[in-house]
Amino acid sequence: MATYTLINNDFIPATEASVLVTDLALYRGYGIFDFFKTIDSAPVFFEDHLDRFYNSAAEMRLPVDKSQDELKAMIFELMKKNDIANSGIRITLTGGYSPDGYAIAKPNMIITQQPLTINNDVKGIKLITHSHQRQLPHVKTLDYLMAIWLQPKVAEKGVDDILYYSHGIVRETPRANFFIVTHNNEVITTANNILKGIVRKNLLTIPGNGFTISERDITLDDLRQCKEAFITSSTKNVLPVIEIDGRVISGGAPGEVSVELGWKLSEIHR
Amino acid sequence: MATYTLINNDFIPATEASVLVTDLALYRGYGIFDFFKTIDSAPVFFEDHLDRFYNSAAEMRLPVDKSQDELKAMIFELMKKNDIANSGIRITLTGGYSPDGYAIAKPNMIITQQPLTINNDVKGIKLITHSHQRQLPHVKTLDYLMAIWLQPKVAEKGVDDILYYSHGIVRETPRANFFIVTHNNEVITTANNILKGIVRKNLLTIPGNGFTISERDITLDDLRQCKEAFITSSTKNVLPVIEIDGRVISGGAPGEVSVELGWKLSEIHR
Repeated sequence: MATYTLINNDFIPATEASVLVTDLALYRGYGIFDFFKTIDSAPVFFEDHLDRFYNSAAEMRLPVDKSQDELKAMIFELMKKNDIANSGIRITLTGGYSPDGYAIAKPNMIITQQPLTINNDVKGIKLITHSHQRQLPHVKTLDYLMAIWLQPKVAEKGVDDILYYSHGIVRETPRANFFIVTHNNEVITTANNILKGIVRKNLLTIPGNGFTISERDITLDDLRQCKEAFITSSTKNVLPVIEIDGRVISGGAPGEVSVELGWKLSEIHR
Repeated sequence: MATYTLINNDFIPATEASVLVTDLALYRGYGIFDFFKTIDSAPVFFEDHLDRFYNSAAEMRLPVDKSQDELKAMIFELMKKNDIANSGIRITLTGGYSPDGYAIAKPNMIITQQPLTINNDVKGIKLITHSHQRQLPHVKTLDYLMAIWLQPKVAEKGVDDILYYSHGIVRETPRANFFIVTHNNEVITTANNILKGIVRKNLLTIPGNGFTISERDITLDDLRQCKEAFITSSTKNVLPVIEIDGRVISGGAPGEVSVELGWKLSEIHR
């Protein structure tokens, strides 16, 4: 069965889904997106992702010509057509076909769906730090220039991903939020100049999780002293970090707080 | 007569020129370009632009499957088909159709041509400064996120463009290089963390121009004390700046050094 992509109001076979080369996303990298997963055909944290999508669009002055309910209905229609129970769905909103290649035009909305298998066998990842501050960090823009540009460095060092910091303050990885656990079992996540993830948001509000999770700046010094570390994202859930810049964390195995928060998260998936 | 766009090896009517939505340029903003003009069907500073295009591609690890001579031949063929004497030609190179939406794939090359009229009636422009450092500044990437995002501020202040600075050092405008003229008639252009423009390069090497043009850091303090200022780009040539952050420069009219360098530039256009 063919997989479909929704472009504006049209269902197009995914292998043919295209936009004109004058779109401002292609021309100037101008656009936003959001991404969520479905488990057994149910979108996870759906409202949170849609809220953030509309917020990103507004921040970038990209008008969305559909209400949140209309958009939901279209996504459900796409899910029905594609019939992929466990999937990743991405909603991209571009700057549109700009006559002068600079001014924002009528946005194009592109909704793609692909099978998604979450690999729960990954027991822990290794990071290296890199000095970089994402521009417009609170918006989920299309800009992954630095992340992709740094991939040879990731490969060369034999690690899994980059951890951005700026002026001595830890920020985020290119596609996930970052947390540490102190020796007092305090759980802390970075607070400023980051994209606030949906898993992060929901972890912060898990009731009765038995932990104090707080948001504040994490310094490079905090990083060197932490007992555990983990990252969170829609595809990675709670993923333990076992090494940063060559320093082994929690004995090179997932820490107990990280593992427990992973379980807590799986309980509130909805 | 239809205008054509060249996508890889195919001439496509410009109104139908498209790429699949899985291209990494659209998906992650990953790609580079270059832009040059033709005057009376002759490309201006052609070799310089092609050199920079190949350099940008190499910096971003985007392989170009054509030699510089092959690319030139294809551009001449496109020019012949389109027959637009005075035009702007843009060569875009994208990250290609990435299977996982992250890894670089086989790049798509897109060459577009449009009529271009240089407006020589603009007698001087107004700028406002904004603290921003472009990422990978030496590469002509697709990233114009900040520039487009700032357009409402430009409109609100009634000015023409933004001048980026970072940590007290002036950099560039989103699409042009920046120069000042001191009270000693020294001409200085910013040296570091910028995209080095082709007009800038050629201005720096004009023989016997009667001026000392040098590259060094320009501080915000230098900016407040300059006698003249101007920007340079392929579409703007030498364009005088007559106001920065509300401070009128050279009496609000183009300065004499700026005007003379504009003439010098027009003499070496080739």
